[in-house]
Amino acid sequence: MRVVVPFGAERPKTRLSPVLDADERRAFARAMVRDVLDALASTGHDPTVVATAPVDCDAPVEVDERPLTEAVNDRLPGGAGDDAAADAGAAAEDDRPDPVAVVMADLALATPAALERLFAPDADVVLAPGRGGGTNALVVRHPGFRVDYHGASIRDHRAIARDVGASTATVDSFRLATDVDEPGDLVEVLLHADGRAAAWLREAGFAVTATDGRVEATR
Amino acid sequence: MRVVVPFGAERPKTRLSPVLDADERRAFARAMVRDVLDALASTGHDPTVVATAPVDCDAPVEVDERPLTEAVNDRLPGGAGDDAAADAGAAAEDDRPDPVAVVMADLALATPAALERLFAPDADVVLAPGRGGGTNALVVRHPGFRVDYHGASIRDHRAIARDVGASTATVDSFRLATDVDEPGDLVEVLLHADGRAAAWLREAGFAVTATDGRVEATR
Repeated sequence: MRVVVPFGAERPKTRLSPVLDADERRAFARAMVRDVLDALASTGHDPTVVATAPVDCDAPVEVDERPLTEAVNDRLPGGAGDDAAADAGAAAEDDRPDPVAVVMADLALATPAALERLFAPDADVVLAPGRGGGTNALVVRHPGFRVDYHGASIRDHRAIARDVGASTATVDSFRLATDVDEPGDLVEVLLHADGRAAAWLREAGFAVTATDGRVEATR
Repeated sequence: MRVVVPFGAERPKTRLSPVLDADERRAFARAMVRDVLDALASTGHDPTVVATAPVDCDAPVEVDERPLTEAVNDRLPGGAGDDAAADAGAAAEDDRPDPVAVVMADLALATPAALERLFAPDADVVLAPGRGGGTNALVVRHPGFRVDYHGASIRDHRAIARDVGASTATVDSFRLATDVDEPGDLVEVLLHADGRAAAWLREAGFAVTATDGRVEATR
C-alpha cells in the first residue's frame, strides 16, 4: 500500500493564529507531521510526504504546489500520476489496483494501532471521518474514486463512492478524527499524545486548564 | 453488566443556549437520551436512567438529585448503592464484582457497534474519552475505582485507576468521543447520526453549512 501524507508547508495552521505566531505554527506543524510519519513507520509503511514546499523530514518529499484535492487525486489508483496502474496497463483491468492511503499531516493523536484500523478493512474505500465534516484519512482501492476536500468532504466522499459503485468502510476513531486545526484542539494533544507535538506545546508553555465545560490548552 | 445512563433532566444542555431556547434544549436532550437507550438496547443491555428529575423514556428511571459524580459513584461496584456486592458479601471478596457501565445521555452518535467496543475489553476499567478531556463512557469492574467528572476527567480517571491498581483499556471511538454540548457539535449529529436527535435538528431547521474550516450546523 502506498501512503501519502499531504502537508501544507508554506503557511500551515493559519487557524491557530489566535494562539501561535507564524514561526510557532510552522514549528508545531512540523512536529505533528513527524509524529504522523513515526506512527506510519511503526505500521510498516513507507509514507511519502506531498508538500506545497520542501520540508525536512524522515520521508521522501514530493513538492506539489496544487491545491490538496488535485494533488491527492493525481496519486490515487487510476489517477494521472499513478505509474503502477499505467505500467500494469489493460492486463490489470479486472484486478484492483494497488491501494493508496491518504493520511493528513495534522493527526497528532494518530497511533500505530489507530492507523492499523484504517489499513485493515478490505473495502474499496475506507474513510476515517474528521471533526466538522472532514475526511482525515482514507484508503482507496477503486480506480474510479476521487477526493473532494471542500466543504463536508466526508459526506461527499460517501456519495462519490456510491456513484462509482465502490464499497465503503468507516473507521470509528477519536484519534483519527482529531485533526489539530483550532486552538480548542490543542488540549487533545496534551491529553492524548506523547510525541513531538505534545512536547512542543509543553515547551511553549501550554497546559491543560479547566473551563465551565470542556478543558482547554492555555499558556 | 449493569448500564447506567446519567441524565441531567432539569436544565439540560445549557451550553446550547446560543442556538436553542430552553424548551428546544429539553426536547433535543430527550431525543438524544432516547437514541442512546435504543443503541444500548440493541446491544442486549437493559439500561437504567439516573436522572435529576422524572423523565419519560423506554427504560427504568431512578431519580437522584445529587451531582453527577456522587450519583454515579453510588452505583459503581462497591459503591453504597451496589446491592449486588452487598448481597454477595465477604464470599465474593476474591471475585470481581458485576461490572457497571456508565454511558452519557448525550452521545447522539453512539451506535450498537461503538458500544460493543466499550463492553468488549476485560480490563478493570474501560474508558471512552470525550472531547475536551471528558469521559463519555466507562465500564468499571474494580470495587476500588471511583469517578470524578470535574475538569479533565479522563486524566483523573486514569490516575484513579492507577492508584487503586486497576488495569485499564481505552476505547478509541469518534462516536463515543462526541458528546453533544456546544453549538459546534450539532453538525456531527447531522453528518453521522440518523436517529431521533438528527431528525429533531432537521425538523428544527438545522442544516450543514460550509465555513472557512470545519462545517457547521446552522438554521
